[in-house]
Amino acid sequence: MIDIAREFRVALPAWIDDELAGVPAVVAGREERMRLVHRLADRNWREGDGGPFAALVAERDSGRIVSVGVNVVLSSGVSNAHAEVVALSLAQTATGSWDLGAGGLPAHELVVNWRPCIQCYGATMWSGVQGLVVAGEGPELEELTTFDEGPVGSDWAGQFETRGIEVVGDVLRDEALTVFRAYREAVDAGEVTVYNARGRAE
Amino acid sequence: MIDIAREFRVALPAWIDDELAGVPAVVAGREERMRLVHRLADRNWREGDGGPFAALVAERDSGRIVSVGVNVVLSSGVSNAHAEVVALSLAQTATGSWDLGAGGLPAHELVVNWRPCIQCYGATMWSGVQGLVVAGEGPELEELTTFDEGPVGSDWAGQFETRGIEVVGDVLRDEALTVFRAYREAVDAGEVTVYNARGRAE
Repeated sequence: MIDIAREFRVALPAWIDDELAGVPAVVAGREERMRLVHRLADRNWREGDGGPFAALVAERDSGRIVSVGVNVVLSSGVSNAHAEVVALSLAQTATGSWDLGAGGLPAHELVVNWRPCIQCYGATMWSGVQGLVVAGEGPELEELTTFDEGPVGSDWAGQFETRGIEVVGDVLRDEALTVFRAYREAVDAGEVTVYNARGRAE
Repeated sequence: MIDIAREFRVALPAWIDDELAGVPAVVAGREERMRLVHRLADRNWREGDGGPFAALVAERDSGRIVSVGVNVVLSSGVSNAHAEVVALSLAQTATGSWDLGAGGLPAHELVVNWRPCIQCYGATMWSGVQGLVVAGEGPELEELTTFDEGPVGSDWAGQFETRGIEVVGDVLRDEALTVFRAYREAVDAGEVTVYNARGRAE
């Protein structure tokens, strides 16, 4: 008989508790939510858990924080454990629903520090969130971090809107680039592992 | 302080042991690997764990089975727990590497019963597999099952090849459609939950 693993688990890093200690249960403003995301993204790569990416799921109207996520590809050993996947999965664990847009639940939004990669683009689409808030979009992410984001179409936001997911952009964009630039300096200094598989194809 | 979930877990259904009981550790032929995938996909929706989708990761050259996955969106409560994500994550858990293409590991391939949806397209791209074997591609999946697969570009296979992932298609294609047709009959009879969020946008 085949001997295989039956289960995998993905966990937030222990340091997340430090960062959340002073955060209230409700963060009413979108800029304030994004500021938390940027802080988590910056600490995440410095701690060695994964790339400079973080996300959170909030109740759109009240601002209650439902979950947070950081990229834990390195610390979890699972390549799909990007910040968006972690935040969405933890929100679904918290609400007990694989559909964050299910009847009876408040509308949820995903807040993330750049336009999602091709995988997380799909993960967001199937999650049931009704809003996506990004700090920015454009080639700067790939240029600065060296990560491959995959073939996301130029109509990406329209594809979300068609499915009932409102997209809000340019929330603390410069602050996102500051995080990516600091990461890049560490990459160039050979201090961090760029886990993306792109290198194998080139 | 925010009260949030710190961890999520995704597990194969208990019935998987029945299906794997007679399967040898090495399944040398690609058709034989796909036949196992089709069997798991068909049982999966009948058991109520999720959609009619299954996958496995094998060592490409030896045919050793490294992991299997089924769509457990319903039973895990996590919307990204598609068959490909489960199989890839379990393979990474088994090998201890977030990169299945890491130096020192044999080449791995993902075997799945249709071209992946937009999320799993990306998840496959970042996993380190060097091959993708699908039963088929085309509109039949969406037409038969009613699932939304997302905006995967027409150059999807070329995008994989550019990144060093060889694509093999049309392996037991008719058998895939047979599974989807049986699922559709159950959908039309109101016997199963189509978990995909598409319905909200229409």
